Amino acid sequence: MTERPTPDPGMQGTSGISRRRLFGAVGAGAVLAGAGAVVGRVTAPDSENGTDGVVAFHGEHQAGIVTPAQDRMHFVTFDVTTRDRDKLIALLKTWTAMAARMTAGLEATEDGATGDGAYHPPSDTGEALDLDASQLTLTIGFGPTLFDDRFGLADLKPAALQDLPHFPADNLDPARCGGDIAIQACANDPQVAVHAIRNLARVAFGTASVRWSQLGFGRTSSTSTAQVTPRNLFGFKDGTNNLKAEDPAALAESVWVDGADDQAWLAGGSYLVARRIRMLIEQWDRAILREQEAVIGRDKREGAPLGLANEFDELDLESKGPDGPLVPETSHVRLASAQNLGGIRILRRGYNFTDGSDGFGHLDAGLFFIAFCRDPQKQFVPMQLALARADALNEYIQHVGSAVFACPPGPAEGGYWGQQLFEA
Amino acid sequence: MTERPTPDPGMQGTSGISRRRLFGAVGAGAVLAGAGAVVGRVTAPDSENGTDGVVAFHGEHQAGIVTPAQDRMHFVTFDVTTRDRDKLIALLKTWTAMAARMTAGLEATEDGATGDGAYHPPSDTGEALDLDASQLTLTIGFGPTLFDDRFGLADLKPAALQDLPHFPADNLDPARCGGDIAIQACANDPQVAVHAIRNLARVAFGTASVRWSQLGFGRTSSTSTAQVTPRNLFGFKDGTNNLKAEDPAALAESVWVDGADDQAWLAGGSYLVARRIRMLIEQWDRAILREQEAVIGRDKREGAPLGLANEFDELDLESKGPDGPLVPETSHVRLASAQNLGGIRILRRGYNFTDGSDGFGHLDAGLFFIAFCRDPQKQFVPMQLALARADALNEYIQHVGSAVFACPPGPAEGGYWGQQLFEA
Repeated sequence: MTERPTPDPGMQGTSGISRRRLFGAVGAGAVLAGAGAVVGRVTAPDSENGTDGVVAFHGEHQAGIVTPAQDRMHFVTFDVTTRDRDKLIALLKTWTAMAARMTAGLEATEDGATGDGAYHPPSDTGEALDLDASQLTLTIGFGPTLFDDRFGLADLKPAALQDLPHFPADNLDPARCGGDIAIQACANDPQVAVHAIRNLARVAFGTASVRWSQLGFGRTSSTSTAQVTPRNLFGFKDGTNNLKAEDPAALAESVWVDGADDQAWLAGGSYLVARRIRMLIEQWDRAILREQEAVIGRDKREGAPLGLANEFDELDLESKGPDGPLVPETSHVRLASAQNLGGIRILRRGYNFTDGSDGFGHLDAGLFFIAFCRDPQKQFVPMQLALARADALNEYIQHVGSAVFACPPGPAEGGYWGQQLFEA
Repeated sequence: MTERPTPDPGMQGTSGISRRRLFGAVGAGAVLAGAGAVVGRVTAPDSENGTDGVVAFHGEHQAGIVTPAQDRMHFVTFDVTTRDRDKLIALLKTWTAMAARMTAGLEATEDGATGDGAYHPPSDTGEALDLDASQLTLTIGFGPTLFDDRFGLADLKPAALQDLPHFPADNLDPARCGGDIAIQACANDPQVAVHAIRNLARVAFGTASVRWSQLGFGRTSSTSTAQVTPRNLFGFKDGTNNLKAEDPAALAESVWVDGADDQAWLAGGSYLVARRIRMLIEQWDRAILREQEAVIGRDKREGAPLGLANEFDELDLESKGPDGPLVPETSHVRLASAQNLGGIRILRRGYNFTDGSDGFGHLDAGLFFIAFCRDPQKQFVPMQLALARADALNEYIQHVGSAVFACPPGPAEGGYWGQQLFEA
């Protein structure tokens, strides 16, 4: 396969013209076509956020981190296949321009899904033509391998950006681990998320290729107090004690990297930890309710800490019943709690997945765990070590994929993803 | 693994009580829990049908065939692992009772997601507790292999229920083909569809095990004139000329099996053909628009037949331009058209899928084709032969999975899936 030059999408900011209107009447079949009013939308967003709206792309922080978690996700990692730093930067500029347009509900490029019709492939693949922005966010991260000797970035590697250690019982598939670059697409319409990743992967041809990707069909965390806590595939509410967008002090403490932390270019950024957690749902489904609740540490219906009444009642690790602690020593919520971990908190933003079957009569389903934190070595690693050692849930799950990325701060208007790094 | 008796979910018809209210306060943590009003729903359906409503489960025909296509799908096939006919019938009865409840928005069983808490696993896995019915439909089909010597059904095998022939360029993966039984779950919330399949698979333990399954994230067909035509991953509107629920004469002609056709038990049923079609989207994305439109035979924006103005303008195979037929001889819509096939039509009800990556830097994406027809040998087979031989689209797709099932008529109130077959 030969390389082709990365197209320049000619991004000039968003114009307010919708994706569908930019799609002009060009091409053999459209000669006789009239203005062609758009009839309606094919699939509507299903978020309780209740809007087809646009999430701002530019800003101090990248969108898709504290943005109220959208309902669907497509996550991809890339291997950079060139050693040419300028080509990589050109791709990042192209991606940024496309991402700014797509998150605004526009076609990926100015000439869009028609292009010239006769001489070049369309620069937008078209499957989102009738769809709204659906709160699409696109969030980029850089993996540890990007900071090797290829692109002159070694001195700019943040100390906290290290491959995660091997945790007890990890059963990682190398084909679901790592990547030089990750892009997380979240939207309330899955077709919008898939379209975005597909078009970004497409223009990367010759510069970066897809390493692995994951579709998530339903969010398992709330990142805003306005959202209802969703349930994971164990049937439990998940992420009740998650960090929320409405608590900027906690976000500053636990999510956003400070310029003084380490590398100045990462100020306002964050770290993304991804873990593909296969849930052994068939085993779980054979456990009695009391066992399930003891494993989690919350009741199933309401999601309250065991012994308490309401979901948002504060976890009390000292509470005791006749048989010992009401929240068992090996329960998931106890081990993962800030109280148990000396105040460690992370921002969870994961998704349920189902990827067919495993060939042994079981569904290949689970949780694609995503967390954002200020320092994975100081937050995720100790948390996961505590869980991997003692969590009763380990009988029912298996970590099969893993990756960590440094997510740069948000792009400025006219800037590009990672500019702070490449121009540091 | 040992077999366990199939639980009896004690189905007594739907009570109108919602899934969430049936979930009683049982279990260690719920002792102190109050009534626990439900705050809201986690994910709302996103259908243009605009309702969280219930699709009737019982009736002359199974739901999920001419039901306006929901937005999301989970499809599964099973291998029956017992040779005990009574056990199989017991499973079908259990499934029917659970399906009737779940499609009504209830928990899978009467005791639901709590059960007795202490002695038995919950009989509903709980992840749909806060969710509405979301227009869930569950549709069962029986594969050719079910009619072998195991269950005394050989004499009742419909003549049209034969494995599909090998078509030119088929590249089938045996792990994505066939199955004794198929269940199609469609809903506007994917978590509702996944929950249904997962709970049905769960109670099958010891009687049937999952052979393969497929998640579809977005519908690619309309089955009602009230629906907008969606787009497939080639960016084209798909299924414009599909059969529609509003045309009962055409459905009687092309979808519903007549008692006089063959086996009386199948009267009011239909055949389901499933094909997992991998789309080579990276190749496609490198084709110019005119090539794409010539391959399909329609323009990309509007979806009109080439040379015409509007999506629903009737395909005119005789139309000529200066360079020959406006709708090329090898175009997909020409070859698949009723005009070209002596009037053959089918009801398409497929879904876009994305299943991660293929390990070669490409997304594993495509169309999970589902079609319902009255006789696959007389409808699907000649259509697919015409396409497999000459369709220009073959350069960009690959059929990697295949299966065919006979879908019995709808269950009567108090009856069970396949009763007409097993009591024939």
